[in-house]
This record gives sequence, structure tokens and C-alpha cells, in this order.
Amino acid sequence: MNTSEFRRRGKEMVDYVANYMEGIEGRQVYPDVEPGYLRPLIPAAAPEEPDTFEDIINDVEKIIMPGVTHWHSPYFFAYFPTASSYPAMLADMLCGAIGCIGFSWAASPACTELETVMMDWLGKMLELPKSFLAEKAGEGGGVIQGSASEATLVALLAARTKVIHRLQAASPELTQAAIMEKLVAYSSDQAHSSVERAGLIGGVKLKAIPSDGNFAMRASALQEALERDKAAGLIPFFVVATLGTTTCCSFDNLLEVGPICNKEDMWLHVDAAYAGSAFICPEFRHLLNGVEFADSFNFNPHKWLLVNFDCSAMWVKKRTDLTGAFRLDPTYLKHSHQDSAFNIFLTDGLFHVSFQHWQIPLGRRFRSLKMWFVFRMYGVKGLQAYIRKHVQLSHEFESLVRQDPRFEICVEVTLGLVCFRLKGSNKVNEALLQRINSAKKIHLVPCHLRDKFVLRFAICSRTVESAHVQRAWEHIKELAADVLRAERE
Amino acid sequence: MNTSEFRRRGKEMVDYVANYMEGIEGRQVYPDVEPGYLRPLIPAAAPEEPDTFEDIINDVEKIIMPGVTHWHSPYFFAYFPTASSYPAMLADMLCGAIGCIGFSWAASPACTELETVMMDWLGKMLELPKSFLAEKAGEGGGVIQGSASEATLVALLAARTKVIHRLQAASPELTQAAIMEKLVAYSSDQAHSSVERAGLIGGVKLKAIPSDGNFAMRASALQEALERDKAAGLIPFFVVATLGTTTCCSFDNLLEVGPICNKEDMWLHVDAAYAGSAFICPEFRHLLNGVEFADSFNFNPHKWLLVNFDCSAMWVKKRTDLTGAFRLDPTYLKHSHQDSAFNIFLTDGLFHVSFQHWQIPLGRRFRSLKMWFVFRMYGVKGLQAYIRKHVQLSHEFESLVRQDPRFEICVEVTLGLVCFRLKGSNKVNEALLQRINSAKKIHLVPCHLRDKFVLRFAICSRTVESAHVQRAWEHIKELAADVLRAERE
Repeated sequence: MNTSEFRRRGKEMVDYVANYMEGIEGRQVYPDVEPGYLRPLIPAAAPEEPDTFEDIINDVEKIIMPGVTHWHSPYFFAYFPTASSYPAMLADMLCGAIGCIGFSWAASPACTELETVMMDWLGKMLELPKSFLAEKAGEGGGVIQGSASEATLVALLAARTKVIHRLQAASPELTQAAIMEKLVAYSSDQAHSSVERAGLIGGVKLKAIPSDGNFAMRASALQEALERDKAAGLIPFFVVATLGTTTCCSFDNLLEVGPICNKEDMWLHVDAAYAGSAFICPEFRHLLNGVEFADSFNFNPHKWLLVNFDCSAMWVKKRTDLTGAFRLDPTYLKHSHQDSAFNIFLTDGLFHVSFQHWQIPLGRRFRSLKMWFVFRMYGVKGLQAYIRKHVQLSHEFESLVRQDPRFEICVEVTLGLVCFRLKGSNKVNEALLQRINSAKKIHLVPCHLRDKFVLRFAICSRTVESAHVQRAWEHIKELAADVLRAERE
Repeated sequence: MNTSEFRRRGKEMVDYVANYMEGIEGRQVYPDVEPGYLRPLIPAAAPEEPDTFEDIINDVEKIIMPGVTHWHSPYFFAYFPTASSYPAMLADMLCGAIGCIGFSWAASPACTELETVMMDWLGKMLELPKSFLAEKAGEGGGVIQGSASEATLVALLAARTKVIHRLQAASPELTQAAIMEKLVAYSSDQAHSSVERAGLIGGVKLKAIPSDGNFAMRASALQEALERDKAAGLIPFFVVATLGTTTCCSFDNLLEVGPICNKEDMWLHVDAAYAGSAFICPEFRHLLNGVEFADSFNFNPHKWLLVNFDCSAMWVKKRTDLTGAFRLDPTYLKHSHQDSAFNIFLTDGLFHVSFQHWQIPLGRRFRSLKMWFVFRMYGVKGLQAYIRKHVQLSHEFESLVRQDPRFEICVEVTLGLVCFRLKGSNKVNEALLQRINSAKKIHLVPCHLRDKFVLRFAICSRTVESAHVQRAWEHIKELAADVLRAERE
């Protein structure tokens, strides 16, 4: 495909995308296909000779779209939102064209520098403590990770390195393995499974702290676990506090947990993957209070801040804690590894920030362009308005549920998620969800809260309006009536 | 930005991208900026009110482009290529619009299923052993990772889990820590630093096997290390063999190393990040011989197969080895984590393949669209022609170097990389590189081979032609004459 054909096909694709977005409400939100549907529809091997673009774009509608779960349909209320906006898509086109791999400053200075500044912009929007910012030669700074899971893992690895160095400095005879065997990390029993997975990868114990009646981690439960573990000879080193859990958008008590972490010299990582975007609104900023106790903080603009996936924003107070965990022994590198070579160049007066030492992969796209386009084209006020609209819609749904005595709200509604259920057995709620997702007019996923089966109604789409929420509720009520009738029979 | 404005701006962006690509040869390949150049050029905080699209696109030219290293310039010969093609960019636009997060089958069936089939297509192009393919209900299969670093880490973690389970099955009293302390992994001393980093993250020892005169890992050196380590009570469990090292595109001897790994029950991971793309050509396929001994294999279509970053293709012979390393204890999940909730739904007759258990992050984009578009729009023959052209250009450069008695070729040229230097001291070669990268007409990076400072000339751009290579060589010769003259004076 030459450039002039790209001009033509690119514009056709822009129209395809625009048509998809405009018509998404008319598509069934959840597909009808069964596992294995796709393989029989396409050849068993790549073609020897080129296919035409027409063939391919026709196949998108015939083969791909029937198997797509439409995350941006206004009838999609499942999981959490994933961001989608036109400015981000435009920026992504530019990112693809520049196509630099920004693992070091020299590999594309603009890629590293715009990221540093955009992370400062975003940090300021959230009113993060200045110690997390990179400007004015501070020790902190932000980096774009691919996902909150990676941010948690990176934080855990940095914390692990730090505690190992500290203990070995005090007792040089201690081996890494002897220390790692005793390391223990903590999170609430409501934390995302990626925290458990980070512990698994990092080879350290992770303990779940029982949350309170509001599904929050509190000081007393954490302190109790700490005392027990220290008495057993273990070494507490890392705590993940979640602001806006995936199950029910509950908030760990950062103002209680933070000081304990500082006192006990444990790394505190704050994971606000979903909720973090809301903190740009002054009325929700108090939910972030206590972040000043944290060593690292992360949230996903790619969830709720209109920056298309992937863009997970992570800040640390001390950049050297991250780079220390990932940068390899330079003398070793110098003699045997390619990076040595590249590093010669990088350190030759040009070295600035090398994000390869802040993350798991080495390669990275020019993702800060998306932030730049979105922040500028919406403005802070536009972004705040977007968050507020979603929160208002979730409260609208909440009040509809509360008006119906057959239903109950399971957790206080703070942001864009409503956890609700039919009063009664798990079985009847499972039946209701089954009917909802079989009808495929809307799409929801459930959660467990303690032993209750609960339905999650998350405001997701950029284009969802009150009318969609009202229609969804009418639909749920009808199906609930069917379920309750069937149960009585 | 509403949809009708997106139609307009999207088409303008298509033209901007096309103009950038058409005019890239006229841009200086490496930028003039100094570290910190960008921050003073933009405001210290995001705007409250929206900026216009015109302002932003003007700023791209004023603020971003002066700081871009143009990886797709035909004068860029640094690092390794990063892929760029119009079909991949078109697919990425569609990927952004669909915007699904394909962590599970249900989250978007087409996303999971197309990936499985595309990885089979690609595996067949490489003539991978059938045991790596997913079709016909095999035990193997492929997955798109973000980078070769992640693939290496994932393989190491899977191998670690497997050996721990095996040893604990035999001796239930062994703790994980007691085993991990003794685990040892191996790679050549020419392996990419990401292997060392994977060992660091996984908390296991990694030993560098001295490579031979052709910078290849051989049986004898590996066997020697194994015997020594086993005698010392260590447990060898993992070997990374590299096909096409980053330094000099050397090839570990897979036919020697593979059988040792199988005999010693060590996981063999083959990393062909750069070179792998060439194996779609029958004349280069022999370089992959021995992959039949491997447990996992990885290469980066986002380097040399025209699929824009990120798209790192990884195959395993036993899918359950990967999922076993990452899937958490389901009974634990069932009671305390959100995934339990989602999993209820996934396992409700719909569960197929859940790629979240194959990788570090949970979220993932619909990246297989890029493979589908590229493979179809080029056809296998088109892709082979592309590889062959690059290899031919590197041999052209090689023969230019060989004709000049002042220079030497440092490693046999197999694919698209030429390692060369001025006969003489490292100092004179460092001076030559300095002049090249200061002139900024072309861009190269160096490497160290043993104690020699060497220049790497990598054929990178999709649009590089013989004329660019010839011009680059003339330029290098001129600068070399300057360097040699300065040395004599």
C-alpha cells in the first residue's frame, strides 16, 4: 500500500470508525457467537498473494463485528469503563506514524519529555503532593505504565529491592533468599487479583487483611496482622491500599493505613485504577487524602479519563527507588550486553530520563501524545464535567433502585458504580443476571460481596445518557418480575 | 469533539501522517534538542478551557517534531528496525475504535479468537512445529505479548512454577524459598539485558555462558556450567537461547543446546526478537532448526514484520504451563476477589481461552487486527520480499565496507545488521561514531564485542533503498578520512 492509497483508505477508515461510533447504539451490546466461531470463517493460513483492502474491510463487518462485545455502547454497564475519545484516537494515529520506541531519552527525546510533563500536568489536576512531581528537579515523577497490574508489580519489586538492600546493609551475611522467604505484603481482601499476582511473580507472601463493614481496610485489622507476622519472624515490607475497589468501589482508609506504613517502614502503594480520574474534581479530591503517606500512586486514565487504552499513570516519590529495582549492574552490562553499547551513547552527555528503567518492558510507544491531545481538547473543565455526568447517572440509577422495595443497594454509591440486588437469595439474583445477559439488551457482570451475589451497574460509555439508564432500569425491572414470577410458580 | 468534527479532523490527521511519511527523508534523522528542551515550550499545567485542534496540530510541528528521532527515516540505521506499515496503522485505528479490553473470551470474543488464529497463521509461516499451534485442539498456542522482555519473563515464571511444583511433588517438605534459592537460569553472555532483568524480577540466579568465537552459545560451555552448578547443589531450570542477538545478530547453537535442555529437564526459551521475522523465508528457516527442543519461542513482528509496535509473538508447547504460573487459586478468588465474580460468568459455559492468564497485565488491546491486516495486504510473498530486500541491502553495505582496506567486518552478516569498524583502536572508532552522530545525516549506535568498540549498521526503514545505503557509506568514508587525518596530526 503506497502513501496515496493510504490517504484514501485512511479516510475511509475514519468514516468507518465514525459510523461505528454513531451507530453503536443500534448494535447488540453482547455478541451471539459461541466459542470457536471465528476459525471456520477464515482461511487456515495467511494468503500467499495480497488481498484487497475492500475484502478486508468487508470481513471486518462479516467476521469481526459479530464477535465484538461493544464496550462503548451506551448499554454496556459491565466491568468498569474503558476510555474512548476522538482526541485520543487522533493522537494514537500520530503515535503510530512517529512509531518511535522511547526506551531512552535519545531514542526520541520528545517521547520521554512530553511524558514527564504530562504526568506533572495530571498530577497537578489531582492535587498530588509536590513530592510526586518531576518539575523543578524534584526527586519524584510520573511514568505511563501499560496497566495498573504492572504498576503494582513495579512498586512491589521496587519495595522488595529496597528492603533487601536495607536489611543487607545492616546484616551483610543475610542472603536475598533468606530475606525473601520472610517478606510479607498486605492488601485488603477486596483488592484486585493483580495484587495477589504481583506477590506470586515477586515470590513473596501476600496476606489479605479483612475489610470492615464498608469493605475498607482499616488500621486495626492491618495492625493486628502486622503484630502477628512480626511475632512469627516475618518481615512486613509492602502494603497496597485500594481507592475504589473493582468489586464495589470501596475505599481503604488511607488516613489510618498511611501512618502505619510510614512508622513500620513499609512501602505504601495506592491503587486507584478506576476511581483516580474522579479526583480531578474538587468535590471528590478528599477521597485521595492520605496519599501524602504513599511511596507510589497509580490510576488509569485509560479507564475513566478519556485517554484510550493503554495509559496507566504511576507516580513515585523517589524515582531512584524504581530505577534501582530495574537497572542492572552497569559493570556487568559494560562488558557483555548490548545495552552497555547503547548506554555509552546515552550517558555521553545526553542522558536524561530513561523510562526503560521504570517498567517491565523496554520498548514503549509515544503514549503521552494521547494525554496531551485529550487534556487540551477537553480542558480540565470538560474532563470534570465528564466525570460529574457519570457520577450523576449512577446516582440516578441508585435512586431508581431505591424506589423499588424488591431491590436493595449493597454499598454506598460514591462514584459511577452501583452494586444492587433483589432482596432474597443468591439464586434469584443469579437467575436475574442470567436473564439480563441472555436478553443482551444491556450487559452487566456480577460480583460477590462476602457471601452475597451482587449485580454491578457501572456507568461506562462516553455517550450514555439518562434515557439509556432509564431504559436499562425498566428492562431490569421487567426481567426481575419474570424471575420472581418463575420462583413463585 | 463530536463525530462530525472527528470525520474532518481524522481525515486531516490521515493527511498529516501521509505527509510526514512522504517527507521524512527531508527531516534530520536525529534531533538537535538538549535534555529539558520541551518543558519551557508548553504551559506548566493543563488548560482549564479547551484548546482548538488547530492549536494542537500546529504545536506538533513546533514542539514535538523538533524532538523526534525519526525511526522511519531511510537514514536511520540505529538499534534494530521497528515496524511501520500503512495496513498496520489502519488496523490500529479500528482497534482504537472497538476499544475492547480483551482479558477474557467474553470481554470480546473476536479479540481472543482472532489472536489465536493469527498466531497459528504466523506459526505456519515460520514452519513452527505443530506442537506450538492451537489448531485442532492442540496443547500449544500463541499469544501476543507487549515485548520480548515480557515474553522472557513470562517463560521464566512459568518455568519457575513448573520446577517448584515438580520438586515439591517429590519432596513435599521443600519450601518455595528453599527451592528458589537454588534455582539457576542460563543465557549466553551475548543475550539481551532483559534476560538478566527477568532473573532479577523472578528472584533467581542467572548465569552468563561464555559464547564462542562467533558469539554463539555452544553445548560445551553450557554443559560445563551445568556440571559445576549441579555439583554445587544448585538446580538448573531455565535456558534462554538467542537467535539474532541485539549486539551483533549472532545465533546460539540451538541444535546443540536444545537436547541438553531436554535431557536435563530445563525449560528452553528461544528469543528471536529481531531475527524471527526472517524465518518466513525458506532460505533463512534453517536458522530456526532446533526450535523443536524448545518449550517456548518468541519473536517480534513489531520489529521486522511490518506490524507496528506492540506485537511480540510468543508460542508455548503447553498452554497450561503459562496459565498455571499466573492463574490464582480459584477457591481464594471465589471468596474474596472481583475476578471470582467475572469468572463465574466466564466459566458459565462460555469459557474458552482467557489471555489474562498468559501475560503480566490483565488488560489487552485488539492487537491481532494489525496482524490480520498486514498479513492479508502484503501476502506471504510480499512479506518475504520485504525481508529479502533488507538482507540484500545489508550485504550491499557489507561489500562496500569490505572494499575499503581501512575497515573491517566484525561478525558474519546473516540478516540485516552489519557490525563494522575502522581497523585500529577503540578510540578512533569512538571518534568516528561521535562524528557520525554529530553530523546527524544518518543515525547509528555502537556495540561492544568483547573489548572492541564496534559500529552497528542496521537496515531499518521500510523505505530504505540502495541509494540511501550508498549515500550513508560515502558519508561514513568522508568522516572516517577526517578522523584518520585528525589522528595523524
